[in-house]
Formats: sequence, structure tokens, C-alpha cells
Amino acid sequence: MERQEWGFKENQELHAAAAFTIRNILEAIMGNIDETATGKQMIHLGHGDPSIYPCFQTSPILETALLESIRSTNFNGYPPGVGINFARSAIAEYLTKDLPYQLTTDDVFLTAGANHAIEILLTVLSRPGANILFPRPNYPIYEARARFSPLEVRHFDLLPEKGWEVDLDGVKALADDNTVAIVLINPGNPCGNVFSIEHMRKVWIFLVTSFLPYVIAEIARELRILVIADEVYGHQAFGQKPFIPMGVFGDIAPVVTLGSLSKRWIIPGWRFGWIAITDPNRILQKTGLADTMKSALVIAADPPTVIQGAVPYIMKNTPDSFFLNINKLLKEASHMFYERLKEIPYVACPHKPEGSMFAMVMLKIPAFADVVDDTDFCMKLAKEESMILFPGYAVGMKNWVRVSFAAEPKVLQDAIGRLKAFCFRHAKNQ
Amino acid sequence: MERQEWGFKENQELHAAAAFTIRNILEAIMGNIDETATGKQMIHLGHGDPSIYPCFQTSPILETALLESIRSTNFNGYPPGVGINFARSAIAEYLTKDLPYQLTTDDVFLTAGANHAIEILLTVLSRPGANILFPRPNYPIYEARARFSPLEVRHFDLLPEKGWEVDLDGVKALADDNTVAIVLINPGNPCGNVFSIEHMRKVWIFLVTSFLPYVIAEIARELRILVIADEVYGHQAFGQKPFIPMGVFGDIAPVVTLGSLSKRWIIPGWRFGWIAITDPNRILQKTGLADTMKSALVIAADPPTVIQGAVPYIMKNTPDSFFLNINKLLKEASHMFYERLKEIPYVACPHKPEGSMFAMVMLKIPAFADVVDDTDFCMKLAKEESMILFPGYAVGMKNWVRVSFAAEPKVLQDAIGRLKAFCFRHAKNQ
Repeated sequence: MERQEWGFKENQELHAAAAFTIRNILEAIMGNIDETATGKQMIHLGHGDPSIYPCFQTSPILETALLESIRSTNFNGYPPGVGINFARSAIAEYLTKDLPYQLTTDDVFLTAGANHAIEILLTVLSRPGANILFPRPNYPIYEARARFSPLEVRHFDLLPEKGWEVDLDGVKALADDNTVAIVLINPGNPCGNVFSIEHMRKVWIFLVTSFLPYVIAEIARELRILVIADEVYGHQAFGQKPFIPMGVFGDIAPVVTLGSLSKRWIIPGWRFGWIAITDPNRILQKTGLADTMKSALVIAADPPTVIQGAVPYIMKNTPDSFFLNINKLLKEASHMFYERLKEIPYVACPHKPEGSMFAMVMLKIPAFADVVDDTDFCMKLAKEESMILFPGYAVGMKNWVRVSFAAEPKVLQDAIGRLKAFCFRHAKNQ
Repeated sequence: MERQEWGFKENQELHAAAAFTIRNILEAIMGNIDETATGKQMIHLGHGDPSIYPCFQTSPILETALLESIRSTNFNGYPPGVGINFARSAIAEYLTKDLPYQLTTDDVFLTAGANHAIEILLTVLSRPGANILFPRPNYPIYEARARFSPLEVRHFDLLPEKGWEVDLDGVKALADDNTVAIVLINPGNPCGNVFSIEHMRKVWIFLVTSFLPYVIAEIARELRILVIADEVYGHQAFGQKPFIPMGVFGDIAPVVTLGSLSKRWIIPGWRFGWIAITDPNRILQKTGLADTMKSALVIAADPPTVIQGAVPYIMKNTPDSFFLNINKLLKEASHMFYERLKEIPYVACPHKPEGSMFAMVMLKIPAFADVVDDTDFCMKLAKEESMILFPGYAVGMKNWVRVSFAAEPKVLQDAIGRLKAFCFRHAKNQ
């Protein structure tokens, strides 16, 4: 008698969550790539990883930093769960430069990338009956991770007609006594927007007045909503609005800031990130949340000590010229992309990207003869043009696509050309 | 009105699990260290991390490997969830050397250390109503991680009077229709034992005959119990019994093998590990477990790509002399430790360590005047002698201690001296 059954069923929960990750969605689309059939080399604008392009190479400083770290022989052993102090201090110093107060070593927790920081945060915030506010559109890892959490997810809108600002009325309608946190991504992934200081101030005043019962002066406040400031694209603002860390408002309402080396240093594979407690009133300490994070971190995976050991050198020695150059490349690329996209009447980018590596582009599906939705668009584009874009349903906006413009100018020009050819080819009434 | 309450209570579950990690237990003991008061430099034999000792430095090959990896500029981008093929193949080749069949690239999944591999495995095996068999004593991370799993944990004994062999009668009594897996650690942590080929064969025959209904010849089998072979200390066997990977029995019953660079290369902080599907009959593929692992991995943290990129060079170029030297050091240290321990009548090591970096030592608590248990012993030893051992309750055996003998000879001699002085000082009837 042949029996195939394992002792348990496959974990459908896992497969469902995995299907919602960027990696798996891209893998499905990549399955349609056939460079031989199209005679074109693949162009991958589906994720924020320009590390394959020579112009986007990381600073040579990092090689020295890693070499020094391993040569010291000091960084081969087990790290503490929160990270080694040597690296934590360097990050604290780095972040303090843009804040009106000092971060200490103990305010910084190191994680295996910002995705891992998200995992930690969702773990510590989880309690039955609680809800968390996510933006729509959103960075998909939040959604994938939240599936494993008892937290109920509620989405507020970012408004494309208002430069992807937060729909505050929507937030007000969604939040209640059980709301534990709100996630704000700035510079924005997937939208490529940067919050103006005016909008940020408005958001903070709104949070404070709506959800912060307080007593005058020094008495400790209770804030029922924690602000999670996802600043993975921090400093990658190249438009009119400067990057302002949300931690500048940390004395008004406590903020937990996520960051990473991945984007500013173009090393997403190094998986080095952090959670910074940007909360000068120490509310997170008083209420025990900081301790809960430490407990989660002591159990969780770590960034390798040898990489932690390289961080202070990296922080201290990466020249400003490197960052200025990367931002210049991103600015030029985003400008070229936005302007040339106007040549294609079948798509629309409502807001010129001003930060991060992404733009959200709306597909005018009714204008196509045989493209039914964003997934169909991306699969056909991959097949016919060997080009990868990220379908918008996976960030919460069906019939949009998320495009990474972080590529070499030649490649980006080629990409626009292919996109244009594809759209015209599939348009109605040719 | 001052209100300290956050919107939710501290996560007690997390704190409880964190308290059970090696890091936190050691931190508590370390809190008692006062080098100024004792006039002695701290000796830390509480964890398997000899990377601080010059004689235990990792091979210089690793510096070259990491340098080549970063210089190639090929390993800064996002890795796939299962790891980059370049590294997976190298591990497959490495493991195949000791197996009677070939491992393919697809049989190897890369993880952020073996602890992370344990997390992945417990995630994929979890289903309500199922139970898993752990050894007692056990490596504490299994226990900490299992707290987050719906799996029911059952413990079978390793028998100190039989060289820490598996109590097979005990396994038989514990396992039932809902048992999904059994964990076997070889070489053993915390016991320092190595399974003989005879014992391994006995274990396998037992598993096969008790839990493997099968039909003759080629028809797929169902094995309700998966064997998790934790071989983090693989090849670190220096006694009479050679290291034999449990995967050699993989054609009889499917085995999932865990491994890591941490111990053999003395780089626990690098956090590079793997799960190998040592299952030539492909039962794990047929039953979907391999796919479930891939889904778990695509969501989970990764070892940094830059480290993955260094792995083939490390695998290919680490000279045998490095491994032979480390094993020689461990052999000499274990011998010296075991022999000198006989000078202390108040403790007993029932089985001379023959592998890993650990020995289990029994404390004769009734012989002490003022030491009540293993925790008390370790706390007092830390305070009075500035020396750290790991209390046995945390591996499942109260009133034992786990000792790492992986230290420089001078340090180990000093350690025995301090332990001896402490024991005699606290013994009854002085």
C-alpha cells in the first residue's frame, strides 16, 4: 500500500506568506524571461538593487572596513543580541547628526537587515485584539510578516493626487483604543515621495491631539500609538524636499526608527540594519517596550559580528562625495524616467519621484486590448521584452506597477523604449 | 494624572523565552564577575567560543576569502531565500565527501547560523497536536525556540552511564502517531560525546522498525518521524570514535542535517549555517516538506551575500592542517581537563569528552556546605573566582554544569585550579 502522506500537512500559512514576498513575486515573473527568444538582455527594475550596475557600486571604503574588521581578530565571536557596542555607538552617532537630541549606544539595536527589524517590531507589538496601521501602498514585507502576527492590519491611504501624503482623515477613522502603532515610510517605498516638513508636522500634531492624553509639563505621557519610522531610504532625497528624520518629533511622540546600510551604501545583500529608539522622553523604556525588544533580539538572528565590526569604519570614512554622487545618479535617473514616461499615453506617473529608488506608475488598463491587469502586464512584459517590473497589487494598488529607476542611464533608456514599444503594441485601436 | 501604562502589556512570553537563552543566562552570571575584587582576570568557559584565544584563531584563509568576495563586487545584492547557488554548491560538495550519495545544490539551504536553521525547522514542522522529541540534556536554543511553536516537546534521555547514548526504550515510550521529528546532536552539545557507528545503526534500525511502515522495494515510504541531525560540531571528534554524519543513513530514513561554519572554523559570530536535505529517496520532496522549508526561508533573514560569496573559497582552501591542529588542541584540552578534574572529589565527569567543545560535569551538591544547586554554584564561582560555567538546569540537568574546555592550556589549568579551590573552600567538614 503506497502512502505519500507525511505525518502532517504542508504548511499552507507559510506558502501563502511566502507568495506575498517580493522575492517570490519576482521569481514568478522571472520565470517568463527568455533572453534567447527576445534577443534582449534582461532588465530588472523590479527591486531596489542597483548593485549590479558599475555606476552604482558601493564605496571602496567598505572593502577596507571589512578587511580591518577581520584582521583585528576581534569580531569572530558571538555578538550580544542587541549588537556589539562598537557598532551600536557608531550608528547612534550617525543618527544623532540629524536629531535635536543625543542618541546613546543603548538606544540602538542591530538587526540582520531592516526586514529583520520589521520582524522584531511586529513580534514585540503583537497582542491579541490589537491593530496596526499600515500605509497603502506599502512595502510588502510588512504584509508578509503581519500574517504571522495576531495583530489586525488596517490600511490608511497615501494620496497620489497629493504627492502620496497621508490621508489623515482615514487614519482617524481607522485608529481606535486598540491601535498599537502606525508605519510611515519616508522616503517612500513604493511611492518615491518625501514628506514635507509641513506634512510631517501636521501628522504629528494630529497624532498628538487625537491620541495623546497628556498633562502639562514633565509628567509622563501615554501614547497609545507608536510611530514606526521606516527610513531605510534615509538621505536618499533628491527633489525639493530635504530628508528630515521623523525622530526630530520624538520628543512630542515616541518614534522607533528603522534603518539599514542597504540602500544608502548600495549593499542590500549585507543585511545590516537597526532599530533606533528615537524617544528622548524615554516612554519606551518606562513602558517596558524597549526591554521587550531586547528579549526578542536575544532570541533572534544577528548580523554577523565581522560585519558589525566594520560598521564604525564605514560610518566614519565613507566620503560625502559618494553619497552626493549616488543621489545625483538617482535624481538624473528619476528625472529622465519621469519625463520620458510622458511619451507613453497608456501609463501615468502622478507624482515625480523625489526620493528612494522607486516610482509608482498607473496602468490605464482599459486602453489595452489584451492586458487584463497589472500581473498580466508584468508577465507579458517579461516575456516579450525581457523586462521586469513589480506588480502593484503586491504593494496594495492593483493595476499600478512599481518601477525602480536605479539603473544605469543607458539601461533606463532601453527600458523606457521597451515599455513604450510594449504599450503601443498592446493598445487598442492601433 | 500620571499613567505609565502602554497600550498593551509587556510580552511575558518573549521575556520567558529570552531568559532561557544561553546569552541571557550567561549575562546573569557575568553580572557577578568583579575582576577587581578577586584580582583575577575572568575565565569564560560558559560557551563554545574560543575565538578570543590566539591558539584558536580561525584560518588566515578566511581573510582572503572575504576580501575576494567583496572585491568581486558580485556579492553585494539581494540573495535568494535559499542562498546563492555559488555557496550552496560548495556546501553540497563539502558534505558529499562524507556521504555515500551525492548532494545537489538544491539539497542545501543557507541560514543565518545554525540557530536560525533550528528556527526554520521548528517553524516548518509546527502543526497543532504534533510533538517533537528532544534529547535531555539539550542545546538550549531548541527549548527557547520551541516555546514559540505549537509543537509539544517531549524529552528522551541521553544516558551518562552509557557514554550519553540515546535511551531507545525512552524514545519508544514517548513517540506516537503525532511525533513529527527527533533531534540528535552529534558530536554532542552539551555532553561532548560522539555516537559510535554501532549505536547509530541501532538508532536507525529502531526508528525504521518502530515507525516506518513500508512496502518492499521502490515504493515510497512514509516516515512519520524526521531525524534532525544537528552536526554543528561535525568533524570535531578527537577520541576513539570517528565522526560519521547521520546522513549516511539517509536512504534508510530521511535526515535533515544542520551545520555551520561556527565551530569547525571558530567563527561563531559569522552566523553562517545550513540545512542539508540528506534524503536520497527524496521523501522530503515528495511529501512537500522541502517546499515548505523554501517558503520559510524566503520570508526569513539571510546570511549576508558578501559572506555567502566567501564560502566556496573557504571550503576549497582551508588546509587540513588547520582542522587537525584545532582537533589536536581540543583533544589535549579535553584530556587535561578530564584528568585534572579527578583531583576534585566534589564533582564528577562520567564520560571523557570525545567531541565538540563541552563536557558535562556533575556537582555533588550534598558534599557542599553552602551551595544549594547548580545556579548557586555558578553564581558563587563567578563572584569568588571570576570564572564562568554554564548551569546544567538550562540544558535540562539540574545540579550539573556544562564546561567548555576550548581554551588555551594555561587558561584551562588556571580554571581547574580556581574550580578546585572553590570546591574545597565550600566543602563540608573542612
